[in-house]
Amino acid sequence: MELLQLIDFAGIVAFSISGVFAAMEKKLDVFGIFSIAFITALGGGTLRDILLGDVPVNWMYNINYGLIVLISTILAMFFTNVIKSYHSILLAFDSLGIGFFTVLGIQKGLSHELHPAICILLGTITACFGGVIRDISLNNIPLIFQKEIYATACLFGGIVYFLLWKTGLPDILLEAFCIAIIVAFRLIAVRYYWKLPDLYSKPDRT
Amino acid sequence: MELLQLIDFAGIVAFSISGVFAAMEKKLDVFGIFSIAFITALGGGTLRDILLGDVPVNWMYNINYGLIVLISTILAMFFTNVIKSYHSILLAFDSLGIGFFTVLGIQKGLSHELHPAICILLGTITACFGGVIRDISLNNIPLIFQKEIYATACLFGGIVYFLLWKTGLPDILLEAFCIAIIVAFRLIAVRYYWKLPDLYSKPDRT
Amino acid sequence: MELLQLIDFAGIVAFSISGVFAAMEKKLDVFGIFSIAFITALGGGTLRDILLGDVPVNWMYNINYGLIVLISTILAMFFTNVIKSYHSILLAFDSLGIGFFTVLGIQKGLSHELHPAICILLGTITACFGGVIRDISLNNIPLIFQKEIYATACLFGGIVYFLLWKTGLPDILLEAFCIAIIVAFRLIAVRYYWKLPDLYSKPDRT
Repeated sequence: MELLQLIDFAGIVAFSISGVFAAMEKKLDVFGIFSIAFITALGGGTLRDILLGDVPVNWMYNINYGLIVLISTILAMFFTNVIKSYHSILLAFDSLGIGFFTVLGIQKGLSHELHPAICILLGTITACFGGVIRDISLNNIPLIFQKEIYATACLFGGIVYFLLWKTGLPDILLEAFCIAIIVAFRLIAVRYYWKLPDLYSKPDRT
Repeated sequence: MELLQLIDFAGIVAFSISGVFAAMEKKLDVFGIFSIAFITALGGGTLRDILLGDVPVNWMYNINYGLIVLISTILAMFFTNVIKSYHSILLAFDSLGIGFFTVLGIQKGLSHELHPAICILLGTITACFGGVIRDISLNNIPLIFQKEIYATACLFGGIVYFLLWKTGLPDILLEAFCIAIIVAFRLIAVRYYWKLPDLYSKPDRT
Repeated sequence: MELLQLIDFAGIVAFSISGVFAAMEKKLDVFGIFSIAFITALGGGTLRDILLGDVPVNWMYNINYGLIVLISTILAMFFTNVIKSYHSILLAFDSLGIGFFTVLGIQKGLSHELHPAICILLGTITACFGGVIRDISLNNIPLIFQKEIYATACLFGGIVYFLLWKTGLPDILLEAFCIAIIVAFRLIAVRYYWKLPDLYSKPDRT
């Protein structure tokens, strides 16, 4: 329980920081930077809860979420270069984050007794759509729609979750294994430059 | 009943395909293409249901919607040129789709006992805002905000719906007539290049 | 009560007009202009209500909101230049609007027994996120994320609200004072070109 809480917070820290950096690239002001960090960190879960009708959304009752975003934002604004030099720690946090958020979304779907495919979709939305709303708000086409193996890791982890679910594994092991799969998939994808198959290069540009 | 179900699915197929083509123009990857198809086909109804509080939204309980989008996406990706050559069939499906979605939105509004004007707005949102969210996600200004006679057909069909409503026509005829009006309006508008009055040409560019 | 209603409507008029002008800059058609005006005027409150689960949203039950947007849109389209020449009246309406919307959002949060920080956030969302959705829809980076002292005025007014709240001031005075603070802050900020501290000028451009 406490470990999962820590992973949750690590994910929010990593997502907030990615929001701050994206916002600073577009030279937003302090309010804009905080808004984008908030949207990136909590937007995916918020969208999921709105689709499910689990409102008022979670961060309204637990002020800690907003505080973590606020502190992460301030630190990331003032120590931009220091933080950027710890690139691999950020990647680790971020990967843990999407793993955890995927599991969280799946469990929310299960608690509504939804079809596994919808649960996996909800997990992917939780993990990935904060970044999607961040990119749209900053007038970019969402990064994960273009090249990054990111959503694919979540979808894959979700499928593994339901394959193992039938084995009757205890919940905590199931969750840990699913997170581990997603983290491993993502790190290997980054390390070996995995991409989804390219649909365009051959027929279009010659 | 079954006919309406078929029209519903035909609309979702047409909307998915339009999403796939728009996404491929921006060279999105497979995950991005599916996401945009899903948003285009189901985004309007989802927005309507969120505004009404009819959540969890419909496609979470009926897995067929997601499946139709998935199959349409795969077919449209692999047979792009074939499908594009059946341009008039696509237009027919699309027109049936907006007609049906408009009626669906109006009936949702009526079931909440809302004012006719709000019901017509909900119908138009159902039919048109999937495309709006698609365009915003792809970093385009929404097409229907710029030139296409599309929303106007829905608004017009909605007004006819409520004019006939008072005559006590049976529901099924009312629905069929409203869909027919919207389809006719849209096809004539495409055929004769109808546009909304241009506000800008004279004072601005000379 | 009646005075507050008037201020509410003045805010919606000002927000609609700002939507119309932004839409006309992008040369949208009539349907697009009305849509953007509607989003600008009612989008912030709608987002707040969706986050809180207070749905169906307010403007579905009270047709007056839509009517005010419609009339404002028509007037702003036909008398663009006349209205633009009354620039300071627009600014006054707009400032009253954000003041009032902030108070409205805070009170909605209080009625859900939320933490003061979340209430202030909800007030700011009510006042500012109609404009954010307007800008994103028009393919602009949201103005208030970039330079305008706008959200800051709402946040400041919200903090004052809760500082005074503990004094046991009657509600009506509390609201009036909070609105007055926000209006004053905004007008002074416009008059003296206040900006949030610039994070970028020194290290980046030399």
